[in-house]
Amino acid sequence: MRPSGRAPTHLRPISLEVGVNKYAEGSCLARFGDTHVLCTATVEQRVPGWMRDGGRGWVTAEYGMLPRATAGRTDREASRGRQTGRTQEIQRLIGRSLRAVTDLKALGEIQVRIDCDVIQADGGTRCASITGGYVALYAAFRRLVELGIIKKVPLTDQVAGVSCGLYQGDAVLDLDYAEDSAAQADANFVFTGSGQIVEIQATAEDKPFDETQFLSLLGLARKGVDELTRLQREVLDLA
Amino acid sequence: MRPSGRAPTHLRPISLEVGVNKYAEGSCLARFGDTHVLCTATVEQRVPGWMRDGGRGWVTAEYGMLPRATAGRTDREASRGRQTGRTQEIQRLIGRSLRAVTDLKALGEIQVRIDCDVIQADGGTRCASITGGYVALYAAFRRLVELGIIKKVPLTDQVAGVSCGLYQGDAVLDLDYAEDSAAQADANFVFTGSGQIVEIQATAEDKPFDETQFLSLLGLARKGVDELTRLQREVLDLA
Amino acid sequence: MRPSGRAPTHLRPISLEVGVNKYAEGSCLARFGDTHVLCTATVEQRVPGWMRDGGRGWVTAEYGMLPRATAGRTDREASRGRQTGRTQEIQRLIGRSLRAVTDLKALGEIQVRIDCDVIQADGGTRCASITGGYVALYAAFRRLVELGIIKKVPLTDQVAGVSCGLYQGDAVLDLDYAEDSAAQADANFVFTGSGQIVEIQATAEDKPFDETQFLSLLGLARKGVDELTRLQREVLDLA
Amino acid sequence: MRPSGRAPTHLRPISLEVGVNKYAEGSCLARFGDTHVLCTATVEQRVPGWMRDGGRGWVTAEYGMLPRATAGRTDREASRGRQTGRTQEIQRLIGRSLRAVTDLKALGEIQVRIDCDVIQADGGTRCASITGGYVALYAAFRRLVELGIIKKVPLTDQVAGVSCGLYQGDAVLDLDYAEDSAAQADANFVFTGSGQIVEIQATAEDKPFDETQFLSLLGLARKGVDELTRLQREVLDLA
Amino acid sequence: MRPSGRAPTHLRPISLEVGVNKYAEGSCLARFGDTHVLCTATVEQRVPGWMRDGGRGWVTAEYGMLPRATAGRTDREASRGRQTGRTQEIQRLIGRSLRAVTDLKALGEIQVRIDCDVIQADGGTRCASITGGYVALYAAFRRLVELGIIKKVPLTDQVAGVSCGLYQGDAVLDLDYAEDSAAQADANFVFTGSGQIVEIQATAEDKPFDETQFLSLLGLARKGVDELTRLQREVLDLA
Amino acid sequence: MRPSGRAPTHLRPISLEVGVNKYAEGSCLARFGDTHVLCTATVEQRVPGWMRDGGRGWVTAEYGMLPRATAGRTDREASRGRQTGRTQEIQRLIGRSLRAVTDLKALGEIQVRIDCDVIQADGGTRCASITGGYVALYAAFRRLVELGIIKKVPLTDQVAGVSCGLYQGDAVLDLDYAEDSAAQADANFVFTGSGQIVEIQATAEDKPFDETQFLSLLGLARKGVDELTRLQREVLDLA
Repeated sequence: MRPSGRAPTHLRPISLEVGVNKYAEGSCLARFGDTHVLCTATVEQRVPGWMRDGGRGWVTAEYGMLPRATAGRTDREASRGRQTGRTQEIQRLIGRSLRAVTDLKALGEIQVRIDCDVIQADGGTRCASITGGYVALYAAFRRLVELGIIKKVPLTDQVAGVSCGLYQGDAVLDLDYAEDSAAQADANFVFTGSGQIVEIQATAEDKPFDETQFLSLLGLARKGVDELTRLQREVLDLA
Repeated sequence: MRPSGRAPTHLRPISLEVGVNKYAEGSCLARFGDTHVLCTATVEQRVPGWMRDGGRGWVTAEYGMLPRATAGRTDREASRGRQTGRTQEIQRLIGRSLRAVTDLKALGEIQVRIDCDVIQADGGTRCASITGGYVALYAAFRRLVELGIIKKVPLTDQVAGVSCGLYQGDAVLDLDYAEDSAAQADANFVFTGSGQIVEIQATAEDKPFDETQFLSLLGLARKGVDELTRLQREVLDLA
Repeated sequence: MRPSGRAPTHLRPISLEVGVNKYAEGSCLARFGDTHVLCTATVEQRVPGWMRDGGRGWVTAEYGMLPRATAGRTDREASRGRQTGRTQEIQRLIGRSLRAVTDLKALGEIQVRIDCDVIQADGGTRCASITGGYVALYAAFRRLVELGIIKKVPLTDQVAGVSCGLYQGDAVLDLDYAEDSAAQADANFVFTGSGQIVEIQATAEDKPFDETQFLSLLGLARKGVDELTRLQREVLDLA
Repeated sequence: MRPSGRAPTHLRPISLEVGVNKYAEGSCLARFGDTHVLCTATVEQRVPGWMRDGGRGWVTAEYGMLPRATAGRTDREASRGRQTGRTQEIQRLIGRSLRAVTDLKALGEIQVRIDCDVIQADGGTRCASITGGYVALYAAFRRLVELGIIKKVPLTDQVAGVSCGLYQGDAVLDLDYAEDSAAQADANFVFTGSGQIVEIQATAEDKPFDETQFLSLLGLARKGVDELTRLQREVLDLA
Repeated sequence: MRPSGRAPTHLRPISLEVGVNKYAEGSCLARFGDTHVLCTATVEQRVPGWMRDGGRGWVTAEYGMLPRATAGRTDREASRGRQTGRTQEIQRLIGRSLRAVTDLKALGEIQVRIDCDVIQADGGTRCASITGGYVALYAAFRRLVELGIIKKVPLTDQVAGVSCGLYQGDAVLDLDYAEDSAAQADANFVFTGSGQIVEIQATAEDKPFDETQFLSLLGLARKGVDELTRLQREVLDLA
Repeated sequence: MRPSGRAPTHLRPISLEVGVNKYAEGSCLARFGDTHVLCTATVEQRVPGWMRDGGRGWVTAEYGMLPRATAGRTDREASRGRQTGRTQEIQRLIGRSLRAVTDLKALGEIQVRIDCDVIQADGGTRCASITGGYVALYAAFRRLVELGIIKKVPLTDQVAGVSCGLYQGDAVLDLDYAEDSAAQADANFVFTGSGQIVEIQATAEDKPFDETQFLSLLGLARKGVDELTRLQREVLDLA
């Protein structure tokens, strides 16, 4: 029995609220249960120095967490003077995942920065960031189309992420913090809307696990991402 | 005529929403028009090293802004590796203001950290932080009383802040960003609920101003803070 | 009775020594009693990047304190790797105050950096910095005029600062360190030579104070700044 | 055809040289073709602060690269003043992988630091670090046993890592740099000697891939890790 | 002919002014011509952590330069966030030189910090720092004797430093900045009052030099240090 | 008797292995007994900003040490976020020494970076760095000649360094770590192949020493450098 009382195959209540920020070209408040991540997309009509004059665009991400997003307070990275390794690892993952479905050539020399700020954290913040970041990115691209800056939304597919783990011997979907801390293993899966693999990160927390267990996690993740991409389409009014 | 169309003596629509964070001992989402600041209070049963064994408590504040809280994106302080001078100046002001109404001796060796994170910025973020920070602080103290850790809420008065400025020759209350950027002078006033002065910061932005003008700002600020402290009492269910 | 034995309305012995540095375009050693601040002005014929090609100049300030300027030794900011919030707050104040009386358009694309280094500190270092910084700035501008780089000194007024405070219930002028540490409230006032307000920063240190008290401080400050600007004119041989 | 001319299922020439450092409690120079990583194990008879008095030990890793380990010179992290996100991500992976096969309770309050320094890089440095790090760790533990500090080597299994990727549509084992830069996807697999999964990190570099392709990579990795753990046993003279 | 017009064997006008700082346990303003260095000694009744309970004392030094001490302005190390290599090299040299004549055992568990801050720089700042630092250190020790904290001044000898160089083929004493920048080689010599060698740093700036030239520099330095240590005795009223 | 059993005039076994790095334009693994330093030369066809368009080249050096190069582990400078003063002092010395024999004008606008990384340390790492750095630099220049980028190797002489010290009253050559830690004084000498002085750094570690002792060190150093430069010629196949 999971601490949350959910069935192993159930996501938490998910909501993706579009357009929550007055200024950003695209924005989405992603809620996976008590995990709330505010994602904003900022469009810049110039790419990083190393890409200049290559005719291609770029999508990058940054990730942060408010100090009291967590049960105990976490020191502010700005006052410590550096981002932790965990923060950097997560923001690299979000950026890679979003680029995997972006046609950077079609985008042209434009950069989109996705900021994912965790307002409240209860496990699964990186997956909520990817899932909500996609929505913010789509919204920003749609706005560029409306403004006539690009011809069509340069996304080749949808992308979303979900975590799974082995909790007391069972494969369970969408771990909250209580489950995550007690899991034998946990894994983050990022898939496209059409079911292709973008990223798999599976880690034995407590002890190594076997291939059969891994394949159960993979199956659960597919189911979860299917639900998430369906919701993305719904909030973005896509067919 | 103000860009916002408000009368010179009018605040923006204000809301103070208590208890918005699942984990913090006290929290308040302060909205001054389109300026939204999330304030959380974290209680720690130990004071900073330099105060230890003095029998007194401490209240301190930190301030941050999400990268896309502003019209243009601002680089994340965590990725730049340091807080700006402006950030430090603001968080010192918030801390001083809250300590001015806290009975640190009655609190005992407990520290409360107030985190003020600007979710969206449209001028007046430091005043919204002080006003909302007071609510979060009160809520945290009330919780400590309920838990029997302290006997009564160790606050000697309320405290709130508001900005005023000279806009096209007129003294106006509660500047939004458009007004602030075009103001000849702007000032932040922090008063207690009983009308005492906690802090005055008046600055000539464009050109020096005279004492009469300053006194008009002071008068407007009193009116604004009165409204803010009345709202604080309301949301905290105080008589 | 003040620890210093001074009457409430008396400044400490003040001296402003011009031309104390061999290299700087302008310099002034400002002494407010035992507070000694060395102010130098450095002229650069280029403005910061964000101002370029705007046809306007810039005046900025930096502030530092020698480690043993104070009764106890303070760690060197250079070895700690960052300036404190207090340092940044003070240098921003000095810069703002000097810009308030500078005609940046008349200056043209020139930047002047005012360095204020506290050789010895006994309270009131920021006010001594502004008062001496003005002298260094004037001297540097006069030199630019002599060199034919600008036509006339692009200053619209003088500027000086002084602190006041509530000490044992009384409003007193120009606090030294002993008075400052025991004050109920302290305030820094920056006025122009013609009596306009440039900056007011009043802070309740121990407990909030009322408007009458504030107005006494304001009155004392006017008197103090009048004496300081008279001395500035004297050392600069202005009419 | 791979740039290296190897069959898809072939590792590069591998060597694990034990005892290459005069001072370290354990050391191993791991060579995967032209990738050379020097791994040293340092034993400290105290654990990090947050673990103290818990009766358990700790294994952690750091990773670095000499500036000219790569075809073009990379700036030294020490002179830039911070480790990159990539470095931190890798060293966290190495530490996790080694801890997954260490019985931290049996180790007792001892910390082992594994330093993995890349002398020359031609792809696969993190996998060479894990594989060589295990050897250094084993050697250090064996020394502690010889010194009578612990009773037996507190390792529950072996651990090694290998990379695989999709190169021109084919799954290939142990990518060198030329292959890695042109791969459609690449993945790092960390398995135990008994074939359990410790970590899987699969990333679409160029475009998403499907599950069948992923399973081919998984199969190749098993074969590669089997060879690596066999070699580990050989150089450590284990049965 | 030297730019300064001095004979090759002549020092600049030297002055060592004792007791210039109101707070420091010992202080000296050392002037070597237009080079002015303020040296203060701070006594702390605790030694660094790594020395604790060893019964020995420590003398250490820090070095800094005001931004406009030099002909062109130098960025403030505090605002750049780190001390340069040159600064660290100099402060290590000052500390070593002073420790070489201090009986650390006789001092007991006391640390003295010598701060050397260059108010104006015209070459030879490190030598002025050592020479003036000795005076500040002596004064601080004398004060500790007066207070009965130590029995006698724990200095085994005097110490002073001077620079020499090869200027247009000639060995010259006590280089000023103009000479230093045009020198073929320059060298810093630190000797004790009794003529022993504490430190020699000789560097070919422009091209290597031969042993005869080096010995001329050595001879000049002896003469210079003799004068400096005589002056030290004079200002300290030593026999 | 020296701990190493060597005669006072004997170097440790020295080897200079050329071409040890697959990518660098020049490289040398310098071994002075158990001190092993990997030196690589990286050629960049652009000089630092402050030299641009001056028609001259530049040679610079960086120095680092692997964490477990030493008997006890040293924290990684990259993870501490800054290079120590010692590191900076050493890398400045290496750069100066190599530039002293380089004809920067003949080199043209090319920069060579010499990276000296200590793989294992047993005293004398800076001297091994200079000696091996010269070999790497020569090799890189020879390669540029072969590629037709420069006409001839722009080196005016050879350069090498060796340490000497006073150990139990005797002058001894090429200190290892055990000797160095117990020495009364130690000195580093850098000479050219033709016997000119490039740099002398002599330091009293324990107590000041006299000129006769210094001259013995100087004599030993000459002998040592002669052997080192002979070996350099041998490994570089110079006449």
